Amino acid sequence: MANVLDSLDSVLLMGPGPSSVNPKVYQALSRPTIGHMDAQFTALMDELKLSLRKLMFTNNEATITLSGTGSSGMEAVMCNLVEEGDQMLMITNGYFAERMVDVAGRLGAQVDTLEFPWRSPIDVDQAAAKIKGGSYKLVGMVHGETSTGVINPIEKIGPLVAQKGGLFIVDAVTSLGGNELRMDDWAIDALYSCSQKCIGCPSGLSPVSFSPRAMEKILGRKKKVPNFYLDMTLLMKYWDGSPRAYHHTAPANMYYGLYEALSLIHEEGIEKVKARHIATHEHLAAGLQGLGLSLLVEKGHRLPNLSTVMIPEGVVDLDVRKELRGTYKIEIGAGLGVLAGKIWRIGTMGHTAQKEHVDKLLGALKDILGK
Amino acid sequence: MANVLDSLDSVLLMGPGPSSVNPKVYQALSRPTIGHMDAQFTALMDELKLSLRKLMFTNNEATITLSGTGSSGMEAVMCNLVEEGDQMLMITNGYFAERMVDVAGRLGAQVDTLEFPWRSPIDVDQAAAKIKGGSYKLVGMVHGETSTGVINPIEKIGPLVAQKGGLFIVDAVTSLGGNELRMDDWAIDALYSCSQKCIGCPSGLSPVSFSPRAMEKILGRKKKVPNFYLDMTLLMKYWDGSPRAYHHTAPANMYYGLYEALSLIHEEGIEKVKARHIATHEHLAAGLQGLGLSLLVEKGHRLPNLSTVMIPEGVVDLDVRKELRGTYKIEIGAGLGVLAGKIWRIGTMGHTAQKEHVDKLLGALKDILGK
Repeated sequence: MANVLDSLDSVLLMGPGPSSVNPKVYQALSRPTIGHMDAQFTALMDELKLSLRKLMFTNNEATITLSGTGSSGMEAVMCNLVEEGDQMLMITNGYFAERMVDVAGRLGAQVDTLEFPWRSPIDVDQAAAKIKGGSYKLVGMVHGETSTGVINPIEKIGPLVAQKGGLFIVDAVTSLGGNELRMDDWAIDALYSCSQKCIGCPSGLSPVSFSPRAMEKILGRKKKVPNFYLDMTLLMKYWDGSPRAYHHTAPANMYYGLYEALSLIHEEGIEKVKARHIATHEHLAAGLQGLGLSLLVEKGHRLPNLSTVMIPEGVVDLDVRKELRGTYKIEIGAGLGVLAGKIWRIGTMGHTAQKEHVDKLLGALKDILGK
Repeated sequence: MANVLDSLDSVLLMGPGPSSVNPKVYQALSRPTIGHMDAQFTALMDELKLSLRKLMFTNNEATITLSGTGSSGMEAVMCNLVEEGDQMLMITNGYFAERMVDVAGRLGAQVDTLEFPWRSPIDVDQAAAKIKGGSYKLVGMVHGETSTGVINPIEKIGPLVAQKGGLFIVDAVTSLGGNELRMDDWAIDALYSCSQKCIGCPSGLSPVSFSPRAMEKILGRKKKVPNFYLDMTLLMKYWDGSPRAYHHTAPANMYYGLYEALSLIHEEGIEKVKARHIATHEHLAAGLQGLGLSLLVEKGHRLPNLSTVMIPEGVVDLDVRKELRGTYKIEIGAGLGVLAGKIWRIGTMGHTAQKEHVDKLLGALKDILGK
């Protein structure tokens, strides 16, 4: 029987994630697996906690990785924090914020939305008025909208939510590791991310963090969390208990990969990694404009690790992406939702965020579009 | 900074899972990652579906792997099938069946339990009477109880549940891949397992399968599944849609590992793999008895991939496990729940299920206990 794995291409991943991966991370993934209750493994979990806290600029004890992808992070934050009937405000300007509305609604939240167009950042004044005028237990937002390439000014929202006694939830799936993000200074109460974007590990894990106020709400729930797998009270007994209490069989090899990817970030230095993401983005933006392409998002609101490009009139979206993938072995992303067919999403995240990768893409696009 | 990964031991994993892993699976894990919507990746997903159906002896279309551990499989089966107020019967004789009660209860099921001791199989006549006398929408059981080492006669229960129009849910976390298990012939409607036991891949994935009748219940729900991440209607649009609809960023490298592990099983042949598990178990049972140790479970009801051994009087549980792990680099499992401190759990699953591994353990136990 032919092994399908032998036919997989090695692709330069410049879509909205997964991003390309440093060979050291692949090496880590393939180390011998170990028991999930082994003292060496729980020591590794301790290191992971510290490494994630450093990356998120938080002192939260409840900073761990979930054993699921970024989407499980969204699920976890909602299923732990939402209690039936809770008033929640979602400030939306893209696909993933709308997904948060769906997820919270399934769990019984009364979700009010404040909607902004899918190419602009949210408006702080309007958001402030809405928050002040309501009595929301939870307010949710996306930091870097993967569907549009917009970065939202979350740092201005957290303090407003805190003043009213609510909890501030942030989707940092695309932003964590490639952008300024200070969980504690910005009064974020619950944050989730993923392994496969700026952190530079393959997909499979979701780093999350909950503030003491968020954990207090969880511990004070009237009913149990309606999700055993993602119940933070049980997860913390495994991550922090003395002795550790078994909850699930942690995916050891993925944890190895995440540990290695985080170590590479800390070795390079968080500030330098952020600067590399910005420099790579600027190099890409200039190059795209040099090819006569325009970006969806206005300068100043662009996420420096995911650029959204308008597909020029007369150019067939899929033809270009197929040629990039087939001939040049480069993946870029399609538009999502209302932006499908209208934009490309070009990721420069994690190990992908290097000028030489951008040059490779720009050269390929020049060839294809110049035809 | 010291790399914690460099200090990890290479351990012979003879606990209740994870089991040791074939080097080819590690190699697969470290292949270059690829996009979750890439045609090469969705082709791999198609192969995974076929490979899992073959292993489960099922024709169910809805046979996929979840992007979470075996515990996410339990969660998924419950959150998709349980609707608030559903009458459910759980037939329990161990820790994991009791966990199923908790998980289903959190989701609003009215759970009735039929309890048996933690060392015996369930009694078919009593179960039959209970099922016939009730009107349960769902009936749940564990096939191979990881907490006790008992194998339950699930093949006799499915048809009884079907006669009454209910759906039969089976936990096959420890059994799938190492035991006779015929999903369709045995009238199982929903089954979940894990990657890290008899399948022989590291932890991180949960193969699941739903019968057409189970999918019908899910599609006919009055309310959405209260879990976006594990919603089978959305997952099937990603696994089976034309075109594929994005749902979450699949952990590509874990899928590679699972594919490779399943391929190794199919190359060896399912019947041969099963026979190897049985032969290894018998070799272990004889060896343990040769050392004067007795097994918790009566012959005839023993799970042939997880053996539970009574800890002899005067022997300190933790001292033995520490010496095994420290000096001999062998992991065995502790007792769970009411069996904590009373038994050891010795796994011979997947790549671990080889006589030479058993001999290594028996030699070490002889040294330690002979002191």
